[in-house]
Amino acid sequence: MEKLIITCALTGAEVTKEQNPAVPYTVEEMAQSAYEAYKAGASILHIHVREDDGTPTQSKERFKVILDAIREKCPDAILQVTTGGAVGMSDDERLAPVELRPEMATLDAGTINFGDEVFVNSFPSLINFAKKMKEFNVKPEIEVFDRGMVENAKRLLKMGLLEAPLHFDFVLGVPSGMPADIDSLTYMVRSLPEGSTWTVAGIGRYQLPMAVYAILLGGHVRVGLEDNIYYNKGELAKSNAQLVERVVRIAKELGREIATPQEARRILNIK
Amino acid sequence: MEKLIITCALTGAEVTKEQNPAVPYTVEEMAQSAYEAYKAGASILHIHVREDDGTPTQSKERFKVILDAIREKCPDAILQVTTGGAVGMSDDERLAPVELRPEMATLDAGTINFGDEVFVNSFPSLINFAKKMKEFNVKPEIEVFDRGMVENAKRLLKMGLLEAPLHFDFVLGVPSGMPADIDSLTYMVRSLPEGSTWTVAGIGRYQLPMAVYAILLGGHVRVGLEDNIYYNKGELAKSNAQLVERVVRIAKELGREIATPQEARRILNIK
Amino acid sequence: MEKLIITCALTGAEVTKEQNPAVPYTVEEMAQSAYEAYKAGASILHIHVREDDGTPTQSKERFKVILDAIREKCPDAILQVTTGGAVGMSDDERLAPVELRPEMATLDAGTINFGDEVFVNSFPSLINFAKKMKEFNVKPEIEVFDRGMVENAKRLLKMGLLEAPLHFDFVLGVPSGMPADIDSLTYMVRSLPEGSTWTVAGIGRYQLPMAVYAILLGGHVRVGLEDNIYYNKGELAKSNAQLVERVVRIAKELGREIATPQEARRILNIK
Amino acid sequence: MEKLIITCALTGAEVTKEQNPAVPYTVEEMAQSAYEAYKAGASILHIHVREDDGTPTQSKERFKVILDAIREKCPDAILQVTTGGAVGMSDDERLAPVELRPEMATLDAGTINFGDEVFVNSFPSLINFAKKMKEFNVKPEIEVFDRGMVENAKRLLKMGLLEAPLHFDFVLGVPSGMPADIDSLTYMVRSLPEGSTWTVAGIGRYQLPMAVYAILLGGHVRVGLEDNIYYNKGELAKSNAQLVERVVRIAKELGREIATPQEARRILNIK
Ligand SMILES: [Mg+2]
Ligand SMILES: [Mg+2]
Ligand SMILES: [Zn+2]
Ligand SMILES: [Zn+2]
Ligand SMILES: [Zn+2]
Ligand SMILES: [Zn+2]
Repeated sequence: MEKLIITCALTGAEVTKEQNPAVPYTVEEMAQSAYEAYKAGASILHIHVREDDGTPTQSKERFKVILDAIREKCPDAILQVTTGGAVGMSDDERLAPVELRPEMATLDAGTINFGDEVFVNSFPSLINFAKKMKEFNVKPEIEVFDRGMVENAKRLLKMGLLEAPLHFDFVLGVPSGMPADIDSLTYMVRSLPEGSTWTVAGIGRYQLPMAVYAILLGGHVRVGLEDNIYYNKGELAKSNAQLVERVVRIAKELGREIATPQEARRILNIK
Repeated sequence: MEKLIITCALTGAEVTKEQNPAVPYTVEEMAQSAYEAYKAGASILHIHVREDDGTPTQSKERFKVILDAIREKCPDAILQVTTGGAVGMSDDERLAPVELRPEMATLDAGTINFGDEVFVNSFPSLINFAKKMKEFNVKPEIEVFDRGMVENAKRLLKMGLLEAPLHFDFVLGVPSGMPADIDSLTYMVRSLPEGSTWTVAGIGRYQLPMAVYAILLGGHVRVGLEDNIYYNKGELAKSNAQLVERVVRIAKELGREIATPQEARRILNIK
Repeated sequence: MEKLIITCALTGAEVTKEQNPAVPYTVEEMAQSAYEAYKAGASILHIHVREDDGTPTQSKERFKVILDAIREKCPDAILQVTTGGAVGMSDDERLAPVELRPEMATLDAGTINFGDEVFVNSFPSLINFAKKMKEFNVKPEIEVFDRGMVENAKRLLKMGLLEAPLHFDFVLGVPSGMPADIDSLTYMVRSLPEGSTWTVAGIGRYQLPMAVYAILLGGHVRVGLEDNIYYNKGELAKSNAQLVERVVRIAKELGREIATPQEARRILNIK
Repeated sequence: MEKLIITCALTGAEVTKEQNPAVPYTVEEMAQSAYEAYKAGASILHIHVREDDGTPTQSKERFKVILDAIREKCPDAILQVTTGGAVGMSDDERLAPVELRPEMATLDAGTINFGDEVFVNSFPSLINFAKKMKEFNVKPEIEVFDRGMVENAKRLLKMGLLEAPLHFDFVLGVPSGMPADIDSLTYMVRSLPEGSTWTVAGIGRYQLPMAVYAILLGGHVRVGLEDNIYYNKGELAKSNAQLVERVVRIAKELGREIATPQEARRILNIK
């Protein structure tokens, strides 16, 4: 089994300091939270950026400042920018940080309800996103919230817009998406093109069990405050690092070693 | 095992006479095609309506004329109107035929890409649709194109907007949706609330194998030109009835009896 | 999908003329029943032999007479001898017909309860059986009654006693074995070494549904009076051919062509 | 989710002090090892007995001495005697310790190859075992090594020889049995009669991952030197307690509480 790649989803676009004061907003907070997660064992840092008041933004400039600040503290970590953006943004707005040529970016592989809103990712948009990442030599992490999205990715692969081996993130437990249970996870794993890698992001209370399944199954793990603000039921997480540390402890108990960023690059075929 | 309920999806909104001349548009064509399918063994007629030139419409008046014409020829068939509508229509437009109090209507249980378009069914819309059907005493057939949509239905059930037992239609094989294979079908069946009934609509060349799986598994079957215009590879279907007849023949070979409309009402708990 | 190989299990060792008069015992009955099944579409004839009074035997002489009689009527059919024998027989007794160098023989891949008896196939016996078949250039059909038996076959493969690609027969629905349902069948299919072929023998009333699943899934089918003496509930099968004919009709409805013996040889890699 | 019942399989019949000096043989060793495992969190002690030189025995007297010694140190632990015995023993020999009326005993639910031997449990024997346990008011733990054995248990249940709710132990990873992987485990769980409880014993290096799956899935866990003499690859376990402690630590990380013996009795419906 390959070593375990841990991604830390530091802040997201929706969780707030009101919900958990450990959620980082500012440049310094982001850099510090990234650093702690990285020291704890995260080799990939999944990055949304927010204004100092917490407002999420896809501003290229803000991304640049934050990526630079993180790079200074975690020189060899893999930085993965989000292209999720917010409801109503154009593809170009969402894709702005890709122009900074981070090593990775997320590619949301289809449309789905998010709460009362619709998170729109039409097929023509998917083509835009894939092309842009290819152009800027950014490795996509394909975000799938439901089974059909894997099919979209396969189509992009067949069209030559994505390059094998693909890397997927199963986001499980979103209310209108695929639930976070072992039947769903193993079904998803079976659906991937051969040679693909995968990580799993269980939402909320599913973060921990999904992480542990991934450790056992040879997948990889995403944790962090973006997806889950609790450490235990009714007990807020103190930091992103605390969530990473638990995964590291459990992986160690289970005999799965943690990948360094350099090892993660090799596993994910990042060039 | 319960008797087999066959639904015939007569015309849909997208297939055309250019693709297959048997696709019915006019009132007379709809009534005749419905009648043949019904005589062949369909107990539910799934109905979109179109203008004489094939343009799809959610016009209540057009629905009324066509439902009446079908009822005249198939007095005891269960008529199921679509509320799928077309891209850009409001909920109210899509819901218009529900006011005619047909016995059943479809309820699309989430948002998904359809080709280059997005078929939007936000959660607030789902609430609208469920309420309207409840108000007009119309039994919903919950259309699910991917796994997360079952979760939406469960939420509506919990909210009291849908009433158990639920009836689902798994639409499998849409390019951005769940694929039509046995792993997906059994996974979906396991996901249903206990006591639910289900039918399956395999798209295109998947219509036949999905139908046969359903016959064997105790589910129900939807066939018809809306979902599939071919009888065999490269050979157009001659009529809706021809597709129904094949299901009837196979069900007979497999020892599963065909439900009459009256039996279908009991199985689906239509009151 | 490859063409469909139909195996007909003509007589077995346990069903009797008292249960169904169509069960063949004598040389003439066996040859005639084989011929009818072969004409109906069976490319493999699975053969137990019995004395004229129905007593099962592994006598090499009796096998020779019957194989010769069948070959005369079905010159190109693939003859598959059983090595199942009866409780208490030695390996050598069970293996006697292999010395006749038929194209195929069954290899029971583990031990399991059969009714109140134990059908013993220890691992050292499996080694004997595999070696003998290799020595006589007989293609084994690996009979698996439960999941662990696939593991036994993999071990023999690793030991070089079986040769890839392996060919399996899932015998499903024996009271102490794996049940005949789609969950079990798909689980078994996922367990096979890549490149393996498989057929399925559903016991009793499971013969037909298992056959249909196999047609749809790209597997192959075994039917015949050995496994099932009924045509429908409460209605005895008139002949082995009648059971084959139904599979052929359904395969035709489902667009799967029937393999000739020559095509079956290629699919199974029989040299 | 119910609290986690940990069973410790202290010594078995096959592992030796030569393989791992921590394997207990003598009365004192058994009592001490049981005590440590119990203090670590095991609520059920699964007990084989051996002579001082390690020879396994089903002697009622030896069982009595050892059960008494264990009871003295672990007054409220649930003692579960094996009825597995050794190749060649009669049912009566194997059942001898049941007459001591321990709270639980194992019931091996079918026949399977064990290495080069056959572990025979014919259906008539299963009837004997079930009857004896019923007579002595001993709760059976149904040992299943492959899928068909669940069917045997269901038959005994239907015959009234076992009483619902049933409690199963999935022994996974025996060379000729069902392998220890998540696909097998979830398949097995789906096969149980509703209301059943289950534990899992992964053999050798599968002990730990199977335990963790069970923690996550709501099953229960069996660990111990009988099934696995290693703590990590190439590193012998120091004691039974060490294996229990690791499960307790992981369960704690995963938020699953450990059942006391009294809680285990309630969960298993032991009266
Ligand atoms: Mg979706
Ligand atoms: Mg077995
Ligand atoms: Zn994100
Ligand atoms: Zn429709
Ligand atoms: Zn046979
Ligand atoms: Zn034991």
